[in-house]
Amino acid sequence: MRLAYDGGAFHGWQVQDHCASVEAALGQALTTALRRPTRVFGSGRTDAGVHALNQVAHCDIPEGTDLERLRASLNALAAPAISVQDIVPVPGDFHARHSATGKVYRYHLQNRPYPAVLARGRCWWIRPPLNIPAMREAAAALIGTHDFSAFRASQCAAPSPVRELRRIDLSEGDWTDGTLRIELEASGFLQHMARIIVGNLVSVGLGKLSPRGLATILATGDRTRAAMTAPAKGLHLVRVFYDLEAFPRLRVWADPATR
Amino acid sequence: MRLAYDGGAFHGWQVQDHCASVEAALGQALTTALRRPTRVFGSGRTDAGVHALNQVAHCDIPEGTDLERLRASLNALAAPAISVQDIVPVPGDFHARHSATGKVYRYHLQNRPYPAVLARGRCWWIRPPLNIPAMREAAAALIGTHDFSAFRASQCAAPSPVRELRRIDLSEGDWTDGTLRIELEASGFLQHMARIIVGNLVSVGLGKLSPRGLATILATGDRTRAAMTAPAKGLHLVRVFYDLEAFPRLRVWADPATR
Repeated sequence: MRLAYDGGAFHGWQVQDHCASVEAALGQALTTALRRPTRVFGSGRTDAGVHALNQVAHCDIPEGTDLERLRASLNALAAPAISVQDIVPVPGDFHARHSATGKVYRYHLQNRPYPAVLARGRCWWIRPPLNIPAMREAAAALIGTHDFSAFRASQCAAPSPVRELRRIDLSEGDWTDGTLRIELEASGFLQHMARIIVGNLVSVGLGKLSPRGLATILATGDRTRAAMTAPAKGLHLVRVFYDLEAFPRLRVWADPATR
Repeated sequence: MRLAYDGGAFHGWQVQDHCASVEAALGQALTTALRRPTRVFGSGRTDAGVHALNQVAHCDIPEGTDLERLRASLNALAAPAISVQDIVPVPGDFHARHSATGKVYRYHLQNRPYPAVLARGRCWWIRPPLNIPAMREAAAALIGTHDFSAFRASQCAAPSPVRELRRIDLSEGDWTDGTLRIELEASGFLQHMARIIVGNLVSVGLGKLSPRGLATILATGDRTRAAMTAPAKGLHLVRVFYDLEAFPRLRVWADPATR
């Protein structure tokens, strides 16, 4: 299933004691709708506060389940902070996390002298003007397959710190209201990786770090040298990629809504 | 001043007893910041729940007031539901409402089988597929200078029901997530006019009313024949026009952010 959620309503994807999580809310809705205990597996854990426009998750359902009715039930049960957008049948060897071949995150910034109102809770407000060409230069140096040890949370449990960062696009949009979006595409993301990269790019934009300095942090792999982690509220998971030869039913998501 | 606000936090623009209003909140912030009773005049009253990206309002301030400091004070005092974007000095004959020569409203719809999550409180969710070509045809018949009596609230107090509707654009955007925006530009709007027009266009889109039927409602001027008023939460005031020859300082807003 492809789903959207408001990260502000949850303490992240993963089930935790005494805290609302997307995994628990969705698992509960599935358990109610299917009338049997059902666990859901996401493409990855989003941090507390991180939003999703197109998260992907899978679960086992009884054969013959009416997917259209299931979607309607889940949307009734999980409203208003989760929306189940599509449910597609997949073969038993599909796994939302293990089968994923890449992901896209988008970070929303507002760079202007006055705060956000309608986008509050969905963006990071930076008051001083950012040097966007310097940020683009710094971003270019991160592209490629690297050991991203300097850009992972200290408690990150991933066995390997190597990821392929395929693309970082900074777009100011076609309007003039200080909106800046940073889109990152990678083979996968380490814990906090997207937010640490954005925090460092903002540091470059504010003149506190040079593009060359950021390249040095990447090369040394020293997390303690990297700048602050950008706030979770600006981050949006917008796309998860799968092998469409192996899972042709997922072609319906090949050009999904990513806003 | 040019300001944005989250309409969901207020019972509309106008001061009311026992209800939060933008006019009262802003007047109170101005009174505190300027240390004297200050009343603010808006370009028009937005209904309860209607949002503004670029509302315009004026007030009298002591000569020599530091406008940059005033903006910062107002943003600290009026946060988080109001953002004062710019403050520009104008001559004494400027009046936010009387000097306005036109306005643009934008209505946000989501037309898809699953509800909005991140845009909830900012759009109207319509589940059945809308016939957008029919809506465009119906919209075209409304363009021009007309008596809009059929498209005003019964309690609307405007002396004349004649307005020039200059433009209605329906845009599906460059993505495929059922997002539909209806942008309306007019010399001015009667009470509920934008929302009644949108409600009728949706009625056409659902096949409950023909484009010709909508033209007939306009011609007869009979409000009771017009379809439902669209919910306030989808409506955004995005632009107010002024004579830039008469008020050249407002040229800074000539191409303002409208998102």
